[in-house]
Amino acid sequence: MKNVTLKVEGMSCNHCVNSIEKALKEIGAAGKVDLAAKTVEVSFDESSVTEAAIKEAIEEQGYDVV
Amino acid sequence: MKNVTLKVEGMSCNHCVNSIEKALKEIGAAGKVDLAAKTVEVSFDESSVTEAAIKEAIEEQGYDVV
Repeated sequence: MKNVTLKVEGMSCNHCVNSIEKALKEIGAAGKVDLAAKTVEVSFDESSVTEAAIKEAIEEQGYDVV
Repeated sequence: MKNVTLKVEGMSCNHCVNSIEKALKEIGAAGKVDLAAKTVEVSFDESSVTEAAIKEAIEEQGYDVV
């Protein structure tokens, strides 16, 4: 498993937390949002998920990975 | 139809808008959230919906009617 912490703009409430964590789960990654720190900590298996796919999943929900 | 504009705290993103507008629809009222103004404009039929029920529906979603 690999862990990355992404800086993400635009997450403002628990609905945002849920939509991002759900989107990551759907591609087989585990995400944990820290609203105050504006970060998403993601755990994933490099053999099945790419970092590009993770960023895409977050951006598809309407947030900016910076 | 009666119209009221409520001041509501805690609405931060489009998910919040959706959850409030959906909750109002479920009790038979029509709500329009203005995120920037922190207001919810509600149209409802006084013979079937009370202002107390409207406030309750919004507060049940986790927001404060002030």
